[in-house]
Amino acid sequence: MGLPRYNIPMGFPACGEIENYLHRHIPLSAAMGVSVVEAAADGVVIGAPFEPNLNHQDTVFGGSASAVAILAAWTLVNFRLRKHGINGRVVIHRNRMHYEKPILARFLARTEPTPDDEWEWFLGVYRRMGKSRVRIRCVLECDGERVARMDGHFVALK
Amino acid sequence: MGLPRYNIPMGFPACGEIENYLHRHIPLSAAMGVSVVEAAADGVVIGAPFEPNLNHQDTVFGGSASAVAILAAWTLVNFRLRKHGINGRVVIHRNRMHYEKPILARFLARTEPTPDDEWEWFLGVYRRMGKSRVRIRCVLECDGERVARMDGHFVALK
Repeated sequence: MGLPRYNIPMGFPACGEIENYLHRHIPLSAAMGVSVVEAAADGVVIGAPFEPNLNHQDTVFGGSASAVAILAAWTLVNFRLRKHGINGRVVIHRNRMHYEKPILARFLARTEPTPDDEWEWFLGVYRRMGKSRVRIRCVLECDGERVARMDGHFVALK
Repeated sequence: MGLPRYNIPMGFPACGEIENYLHRHIPLSAAMGVSVVEAAADGVVIGAPFEPNLNHQDTVFGGSASAVAILAAWTLVNFRLRKHGINGRVVIHRNRMHYEKPILARFLARTEPTPDDEWEWFLGVYRRMGKSRVRIRCVLECDGERVARMDGHFVALK
């Protein structure tokens, strides 16, 4: 599976800064030991270690897998707003997860590209109405293989 | 919203035992501070405190809300198997979450009743095939009000 590198625009927070923000403001992200591997307005990759996210069967707990995917998608929506100079808050409205394979090691949540016209609609509606919605898809990977997928609908509010 | 009390059959583990099991085997459940409020083959209620589950907006992080709902549903399927003397393992296959309101305090995940014929189908297929699937619905409540709902498909395996 290819690992695209995203351009991080000048002036945007580095991965370490975002990681600190998440750990400070969302205590569960620290408990899960997440790290921000890549972060840009085009895509976000968040990694999570195995041990803190285990279940009783020594595979990753489904609740951890979905929480890491939600974090990656949420971070992407924030980045995209920031790229356009918008300081809205972002909340999740709904999401679906498919757990395809047991996760047996460190894993990554990688957002999938959202089409440009969906971003344009999202930003246009936000500017007119002060509120908008966007759908973000993520894949979870472990050892280069897809192990789960998530899609979530996020709402941005003034 | 009524809070039904479930009958806990003789010989079944008490809430405290299940809580210890979860905390010991699923470290995230300890990090989230979950407690088992009620547990029986008819229904499970799991509580989670506010502080460890906060997000950057001082509401409950969506990833915590869905993880607690998944725990409640997973515990119920285990209980039901145990009631019928079956020692299978239970894994999540997929789930959906709807976040209806911000969660601003301690919250509960409460499983909803699964119709008897669905349980019968689930157990019958498991006995014949050594593998089966069941759909479990949960509501999340905060201060007596519904704040989110989840449905998940779980697979039991030999």
